[in-house]
Amino acid sequence: MNKHIKKLLNKKIAFVGSVHDNKPQIKSMLVNKREGGNVFYFASNNGSQRVKQWQENPNACVYFYAKPIYRGVMLNGTMEVINDMAVKQAQWHPSMKFVYKDGYVNDPDYCILKFTATSGRYYSMLKSEDIEV
Amino acid sequence: MNKHIKKLLNKKIAFVGSVHDNKPQIKSMLVNKREGGNVFYFASNNGSQRVKQWQENPNACVYFYAKPIYRGVMLNGTMEVINDMAVKQAQWHPSMKFVYKDGYVNDPDYCILKFTATSGRYYSMLKSEDIEV
Repeated sequence: MNKHIKKLLNKKIAFVGSVHDNKPQIKSMLVNKREGGNVFYFASNNGSQRVKQWQENPNACVYFYAKPIYRGVMLNGTMEVINDMAVKQAQWHPSMKFVYKDGYVNDPDYCILKFTATSGRYYSMLKSEDIEV
Repeated sequence: MNKHIKKLLNKKIAFVGSVHDNKPQIKSMLVNKREGGNVFYFASNNGSQRVKQWQENPNACVYFYAKPIYRGVMLNGTMEVINDMAVKQAQWHPSMKFVYKDGYVNDPDYCILKFTATSGRYYSMLKSEDIEV
């Protein structure tokens, strides 16, 4: 894996894709934790549209982007919605108290999304190639 | 439409979504031309994976993003693949000669993608709301 791909996979902001009713959806999300180059965690909300979409169809993609020459990596895989308290506590950050106000780590709206990549593709300006994940 | 949304819709880089085999796909693309806040054109390649996907399933989304406080707009609609020479000539920029080397504007790989939005949603840090497009 080249250094540009490694750098992309360490970006804070991911563009995360889901499918609803055969239509694509994109949202930017802050990466909460990563394991290797193929597992990414995000803090999310049980009440959100996106969480419902992944519960119905776990197919997901995560895209990382960098200027100035339009490099990008798209990882394809699945998204799991986690409400296990041990996982939620392990991923809790103090700053999250501004988000989950109804009991903080015990806020029933707080959930963790776990993305696991099964394939990937690297885009560099005018070319693209499959990558190992 | 508030000024933040207007500013987002004028960003150069869009994150564009498609669906293949019930799986979401994302790619960053440079906006080539825009009409109002709901029609966006991109230069693309007839031979690319993404163009084939939109020919099979025209559902698409376009997402614009801005730091520092994580504002985003997602537009949902459809993507049309255009090979009409008048449209391609009208959208041709001199710098594209570095991309379409096999005859420049006559390069058979050169095509225009036209995205037309039918709905939109605005994300601002912790809240989201539907917008008119």
